[in-house]
Amino acid sequence: MKKDITIYDIAADVGLSPTTVSRALSNHPRVKEKTRLKVFEAAKAMGYQSNIFASNLRKKRSNNIGVIVPKLNSPFQSSVLAGMEKIANQAGYNLVISQSMESLDKEIANTKTMFNSRVDGLLVSMAGSTDEIDHFKPFFQKEVPVLFFDRVPEKNGCTGVIINNTQAAHEATTHLIQQGCRRIAHVLGNLKINVYADRLKGYKYALLDHGLPYDEENIILNDLSEDTGEQVIQQILNRNPRADGLLVSNDTCAASCLMALKKRNIKVPEEIALVGFNNDLISRMVEPNISTINYPGFHMGEVAMKSLVDHLGEGHHEILQKTNTITLRSELLIRESSLRKKTNHDIRD
Amino acid sequence: MKKDITIYDIAADVGLSPTTVSRALSNHPRVKEKTRLKVFEAAKAMGYQSNIFASNLRKKRSNNIGVIVPKLNSPFQSSVLAGMEKIANQAGYNLVISQSMESLDKEIANTKTMFNSRVDGLLVSMAGSTDEIDHFKPFFQKEVPVLFFDRVPEKNGCTGVIINNTQAAHEATTHLIQQGCRRIAHVLGNLKINVYADRLKGYKYALLDHGLPYDEENIILNDLSEDTGEQVIQQILNRNPRADGLLVSNDTCAASCLMALKKRNIKVPEEIALVGFNNDLISRMVEPNISTINYPGFHMGEVAMKSLVDHLGEGHHEILQKTNTITLRSELLIRESSLRKKTNHDIRD
Repeated sequence: MKKDITIYDIAADVGLSPTTVSRALSNHPRVKEKTRLKVFEAAKAMGYQSNIFASNLRKKRSNNIGVIVPKLNSPFQSSVLAGMEKIANQAGYNLVISQSMESLDKEIANTKTMFNSRVDGLLVSMAGSTDEIDHFKPFFQKEVPVLFFDRVPEKNGCTGVIINNTQAAHEATTHLIQQGCRRIAHVLGNLKINVYADRLKGYKYALLDHGLPYDEENIILNDLSEDTGEQVIQQILNRNPRADGLLVSNDTCAASCLMALKKRNIKVPEEIALVGFNNDLISRMVEPNISTINYPGFHMGEVAMKSLVDHLGEGHHEILQKTNTITLRSELLIRESSLRKKTNHDIRD
Repeated sequence: MKKDITIYDIAADVGLSPTTVSRALSNHPRVKEKTRLKVFEAAKAMGYQSNIFASNLRKKRSNNIGVIVPKLNSPFQSSVLAGMEKIANQAGYNLVISQSMESLDKEIANTKTMFNSRVDGLLVSMAGSTDEIDHFKPFFQKEVPVLFFDRVPEKNGCTGVIINNTQAAHEATTHLIQQGCRRIAHVLGNLKINVYADRLKGYKYALLDHGLPYDEENIILNDLSEDTGEQVIQQILNRNPRADGLLVSNDTCAASCLMALKKRNIKVPEEIALVGFNNDLISRMVEPNISTINYPGFHMGEVAMKSLVDHLGEGHHEILQKTNTITLRSELLIRESSLRKKTNHDIRD
């Protein structure tokens, strides 16, 4: 890397004093417009780098906001990041990103790096294996704001941006019951994560509300990846009577289940009605289209970043401290994979 | 934000001299293990932040690597980022990410921010509207390495990590011709982007190699989003004779075309054979499965970051300067959407 260009180099080049150059660069009112332009052009041509870095050190600001996600390579998380970047960029912050790969150890390491590189704030969606939040203590002690999104700790005092997962699963389960399902299997990720624990609650409450028994054997846990469908469907078929409804915690796994069902000529929704989660592209592209919960990732990213940026602004420190949870709206999108009862319109066709 | 904890605070707390504390924290060999542990524990309990930030300023290193992508919210780009983060994290670098939203103006603004926040290197996949690289000049002048990936400038002297798009499209087009297609429509993004310009070349060369005429009306340009299928298929059906093969530049648009074809009861692959690009999840989940080019996003991210990190290491500066292009392997995956001729195995079934 080459030597930095300084204001002294520019001064020598344009034939002005370093003081005038410095003033011109900081848009000082006493510098004539013509001089200012001359200095700016020389600075640009010579590759002068305004010293935000050193100036941030004095201000104790890095202008960086750290984001830790479980996996970058996920349709949901990339929507969230796109929303965060949009807001951060508008507000003049950079996004520093890392992934925990669902591992507490890696999350701890990421957190340390973020702390030592002095991010101005931290946004976290927790790893599957994270069961404590001690590694965020240095941030809490130093009053560097930490905001959780989607996967949040149960502890009070942490601010989180979430959807109401209990309600979403309740709504989806109720819909399946209304379509005539009586034995609904529920596929979930790691139950340590609030997202899945809350959905399981919503599922149980909906069964209770409709007088249906809860049977632990209908709960299937896996990593919700694209390869999981075969095993889920096999597990369902091994039982007698088998499930007639299936609520799956993401659309990737739901689509994988759909493939496994079609391979066996089991009719969806007639024999098994299916609902996914997230409203990913895939839910709209497979046949039949998969009913799903519209989970607003981009909007979640925007809201989380906006809350953090507002907090970092002057005079707004208290808003975040007094906020426990920001809950975004989600909604059930009913499509072919779960719609058994024909509407009037359908019958007419 | 609270006041920083200094080595003086720790010294006062543990009852040692600031010099000893400083030595203990930097693992100086003359400090006893017991003392070292005592200092480390106090530092941790008090929330001491090792001053990487100031130490980097002295070393003129930020330990940040900038990445500019067209859109964060894309299956391909999120695979690339996951690969980059893996390598950067291992090598002790942070990833600073921004998106140009396909706009040159935004790319210029992002580049300025990255330059002024003193990233140690920059990885760029160019915006659709970028037709010059003047905005990277400050990096070139200062000898901060810039590496392009996927969407690279045509200029000599820039290092890029790509696949051979010409060859990939040639292979896919040849496959369609071998399956009996004679009028192949080709759906592409902005032809300013090397990725699409090169594919168009490969498509033309394959037609030429097989004595088929090139007809500009078979070239369809759009943004390859999930809503484009209807319009593509309508355009194809408006011609007589209509196309009997379709090569689409990403799997999202290919899946959308497939839906539009199925809606009209046009048989795939019998009436129109279909090939996509990228090997996204969706290509494996729709029915029929979509033949596609396996485009190694995660690996591209790993290779690009590895090259940059190696370059930043001691004594490796020349490798990148002497490299013009790193070309990764891609391959055609033949699936149901384009396979018309039965193999012996299929016939036996």
